[in-house]
Amino acid sequence: MGKRVGFIGLGAMGNPMSKNLLKAGFDLTVWNRTESKMKEIVELGAKSAHSAKEVAQNSEVTITMLTAPSDVEQVILQKDGVLEGLKPGAAVIDMSTISPEVSKRIASNVANTGTYMLDAPVSGSIGTAAMAALTILVGGEKKVFENHKDVLAGLGKNIFYIGLNGMGCYVKLVSNAIMGTHMAVLAEAMCLGAKAGVSMDTMVEALKSTVAASRILDLKNPNILNGDYKAQFMLKLLFKDLGLALEAAANGSIPMPIVGLVRQVYAEAIAAGRGDDDFSAVAALAEKLSNVSLKK
Amino acid sequence: MGKRVGFIGLGAMGNPMSKNLLKAGFDLTVWNRTESKMKEIVELGAKSAHSAKEVAQNSEVTITMLTAPSDVEQVILQKDGVLEGLKPGAAVIDMSTISPEVSKRIASNVANTGTYMLDAPVSGSIGTAAMAALTILVGGEKKVFENHKDVLAGLGKNIFYIGLNGMGCYVKLVSNAIMGTHMAVLAEAMCLGAKAGVSMDTMVEALKSTVAASRILDLKNPNILNGDYKAQFMLKLLFKDLGLALEAAANGSIPMPIVGLVRQVYAEAIAAGRGDDDFSAVAALAEKLSNVSLKK
Amino acid sequence: MGKRVGFIGLGAMGNPMSKNLLKAGFDLTVWNRTESKMKEIVELGAKSAHSAKEVAQNSEVTITMLTAPSDVEQVILQKDGVLEGLKPGAAVIDMSTISPEVSKRIASNVANTGTYMLDAPVSGSIGTAAMAALTILVGGEKKVFENHKDVLAGLGKNIFYIGLNGMGCYVKLVSNAIMGTHMAVLAEAMCLGAKAGVSMDTMVEALKSTVAASRILDLKNPNILNGDYKAQFMLKLLFKDLGLALEAAANGSIPMPIVGLVRQVYAEAIAAGRGDDDFSAVAALAEKLSNVSLKK
Amino acid sequence: MGKRVGFIGLGAMGNPMSKNLLKAGFDLTVWNRTESKMKEIVELGAKSAHSAKEVAQNSEVTITMLTAPSDVEQVILQKDGVLEGLKPGAAVIDMSTISPEVSKRIASNVANTGTYMLDAPVSGSIGTAAMAALTILVGGEKKVFENHKDVLAGLGKNIFYIGLNGMGCYVKLVSNAIMGTHMAVLAEAMCLGAKAGVSMDTMVEALKSTVAASRILDLKNPNILNGDYKAQFMLKLLFKDLGLALEAAANGSIPMPIVGLVRQVYAEAIAAGRGDDDFSAVAALAEKLSNVSLKK
Repeated sequence: MGKRVGFIGLGAMGNPMSKNLLKAGFDLTVWNRTESKMKEIVELGAKSAHSAKEVAQNSEVTITMLTAPSDVEQVILQKDGVLEGLKPGAAVIDMSTISPEVSKRIASNVANTGTYMLDAPVSGSIGTAAMAALTILVGGEKKVFENHKDVLAGLGKNIFYIGLNGMGCYVKLVSNAIMGTHMAVLAEAMCLGAKAGVSMDTMVEALKSTVAASRILDLKNPNILNGDYKAQFMLKLLFKDLGLALEAAANGSIPMPIVGLVRQVYAEAIAAGRGDDDFSAVAALAEKLSNVSLKK
Repeated sequence: MGKRVGFIGLGAMGNPMSKNLLKAGFDLTVWNRTESKMKEIVELGAKSAHSAKEVAQNSEVTITMLTAPSDVEQVILQKDGVLEGLKPGAAVIDMSTISPEVSKRIASNVANTGTYMLDAPVSGSIGTAAMAALTILVGGEKKVFENHKDVLAGLGKNIFYIGLNGMGCYVKLVSNAIMGTHMAVLAEAMCLGAKAGVSMDTMVEALKSTVAASRILDLKNPNILNGDYKAQFMLKLLFKDLGLALEAAANGSIPMPIVGLVRQVYAEAIAAGRGDDDFSAVAALAEKLSNVSLKK
Repeated sequence: MGKRVGFIGLGAMGNPMSKNLLKAGFDLTVWNRTESKMKEIVELGAKSAHSAKEVAQNSEVTITMLTAPSDVEQVILQKDGVLEGLKPGAAVIDMSTISPEVSKRIASNVANTGTYMLDAPVSGSIGTAAMAALTILVGGEKKVFENHKDVLAGLGKNIFYIGLNGMGCYVKLVSNAIMGTHMAVLAEAMCLGAKAGVSMDTMVEALKSTVAASRILDLKNPNILNGDYKAQFMLKLLFKDLGLALEAAANGSIPMPIVGLVRQVYAEAIAAGRGDDDFSAVAALAEKLSNVSLKK
Repeated sequence: MGKRVGFIGLGAMGNPMSKNLLKAGFDLTVWNRTESKMKEIVELGAKSAHSAKEVAQNSEVTITMLTAPSDVEQVILQKDGVLEGLKPGAAVIDMSTISPEVSKRIASNVANTGTYMLDAPVSGSIGTAAMAALTILVGGEKKVFENHKDVLAGLGKNIFYIGLNGMGCYVKLVSNAIMGTHMAVLAEAMCLGAKAGVSMDTMVEALKSTVAASRILDLKNPNILNGDYKAQFMLKLLFKDLGLALEAAANGSIPMPIVGLVRQVYAEAIAAGRGDDDFSAVAALAEKLSNVSLKK
């Protein structure tokens, strides 16, 4: 059988990611705080563990895919956590989007025990995860990265070694700060065209051909034109990530005026009840604030 | 010989555009307020006129490519202007980026005389203009657009009929509002990665693979990484366009908080002496405000 | 009888101001584009004229109190305007809030004819105007200011000679940029307290005692706590003034990021139907965006 | 002798506050992590303790005046902390500016032991503290507030009972969000007047008479006009407080676009080396960004 891999955190992203590891032939052990979420993956061939520690004991490399920085810290460092289970030379790869400072602090604790950590946050949505087409941004020792690149290759297509521990997180926050702004300004600006009576289909096609073109325009214009905001990436999670970016910026004395404002635009969308929708639902807020429809 | 085409405004964009019309075989008459700028084009085969009116008298279709809305208004509507010279059935195509309201007002004056006007602002830089690869956004009567599409095809690759008079201008302003924000947030966010010590080349390659990807990232990352801000599109002209977008928005009761802020970021770049540089020089401002270098 | 004074523009502010000039004993001639608005003032003792020119012919000093810069330009400079009627040595005092550049251009035209102009915009609302308690900010030649200070003293309590032509306008725009921001941030911040369950009366009393105290807090807290937004100064006029401030800033290469954003917050309030309400109705927008009530 | 009062945290604010408690006749016990800071206060008559616990053991009411929320949590709740020393019925009053959520969590821990906690953050600077003229915003049980109002009266002039635990913190953050914006927009807007050539003294006097008047204008104009930014309240601490306000707002789904931007303006000032100066040094940033001088 294949390499022994652990996976902790079977949420909206972790579910398709763990399935892809099974498809790729890895010998998978999983654990999730809410037990019921393990059932589907176990039926597909994974072993289940009773704790994060037990996952690590069974694995050469253990992946964590969680939401909050505090969750990651707890699952890796606290009692019955990954660190207690990791064997000498084994590694934990945290693929959550967390603050670089927290990631570096965990990595430093892990390194003290003779085991290894990578931060490897991903760019992409639930759909991209399902197609094993995530972009993966890796920080940590290059040797450890090389050792476990085969596992990451089961999850994503474009895998970048960024640099030292924490640097994967930094580039992920840079990426989300840019992406969140692209989405919010697209919504805001399209309202000006809509008010002028421009056909939405025409405007989108034209914009794709101008220097305003972006992946967000390609990916999200169907959501806007159909008013369909089923979550691929929840707006409240982007709001969280923008907060992490701003705190990392504060710690590094980097001013981010545009992102500082954009985060509050998403706060308006959350207050308007859009937190659990896709982050492109910021367009629904823009429609409301502008009294126009962006639907085709 | 080919169709008789007039061209008024031989500035940074008008120069390569008029050359492309000659290459495409049109019978070209030109006029420029500063006479010396006509010499090069005349030596390549164009006729020179003594006024905007004379250009229009000699042409089936007359193109204007100027900077300020007031310039366009004057060159078309005032004494010895285009409108005095246009023969019945002839058309003027304004390819400047001006406010939709002014464009519609001029179009309405033109229509009253039995001649025609299109607004056809372009997306692209001096380089794109030179390659006849501009994106052209056209507002006005569809019949007039069809009649003169051959001329536009000599200037650009992607030509979109947007709708009624003024709508070309609206989509152009939407495009520049988005593009200007993309550039400014890219600069701001990259500083966070730079401060963390991420290699600039690596960050750019990684971002291209994430949902933060954009045409601006593709086009402008060499400027940022080399600190080379030779103008393809002057920062102060983008600042002007963002002002036009905000005034069009004000007239249509469309709030644009992000663009309202972004325009002031460019104002900071102008105050820092970057008005005549390429608009990507907003990255030099970000470097200064953040005490980091984005150069590779 | 008193000095012969002309008054043009009998709107919401001009009405109480012209009455105060009568009360102060001046020999008043009035004109208003909408004739019916002259009736009340004429019944109180003013003479009516048939044009701006006729007002100026009858007056040692003529006051204009209008809305848009273009109105002021037209009423003073165009046919049958003030300038045609002004006798040698007479003066026009424009008390409208207009752009300094326009004001200086008009002043320069006036000066060329051997007559004088002051810009003298006011701070205060309809209520302050009625009590002859306006603050008046004066630009122009000091001698002219001294000559006509008696007239201004009939309209306001605090009269400041600021400096050269246009400087009254600059300080007025500075004042409105600050005031508009004070109002908008007060609304935004009070929502945080309201959400926490703090009593509105208590919060207002406490804030008055902190370094967050301001005249706007003193003047506008009753509007907020009662949800009463009857216009003392219409929100759409403040939006206009913030636009004038930003354009003056653009012309002087002064970045104004906060004001750039704040203007768009008022744009949101206008889009929400609050343009004709008092500008403190930006608090009603904040309530809506935050899902809280600021009413006591 | 008077009531037995404890004081923990003898920094820039705690130093004058503890002196005022001695002057008011209270029987004072102090403790500070950096021991040397106790010397001056002990020489004036206070007793020194060896731990926060020992302070609380000796006191009917113990005051904490610290910087970060984590400091307060540690000093009150951890080993050898205040809670271990508090006798039944005794109280701790935290006068630091911390997040309301943290304050409520501490208060809830304290309440579980049969002792009491008030949050009582202050508005005012080092100078105001020295004059015992602070404004104090109190959250917690009213009975506890009434019992220890005598102690607060030794520290401040305007003492407000706001409501339940945490509400003092909320109003403090509301106040600092407003104040921080007042300061930043004053700096930004004054640059417009300065560029126009208006005398700074004249502008300040005029603004005081308009609806742009504020306590910040009264307090800070001398700093701006003299370019003297000796800290009364350090800019980096205001930056911290604005961060606390935004996180409290995020937790309550209250959007704060203006404050979101203003915090980043202070981030720019920190990056420009102004973090340890008075927060009015944001005016020095504005001068640099605008190429004008605000000095008289």
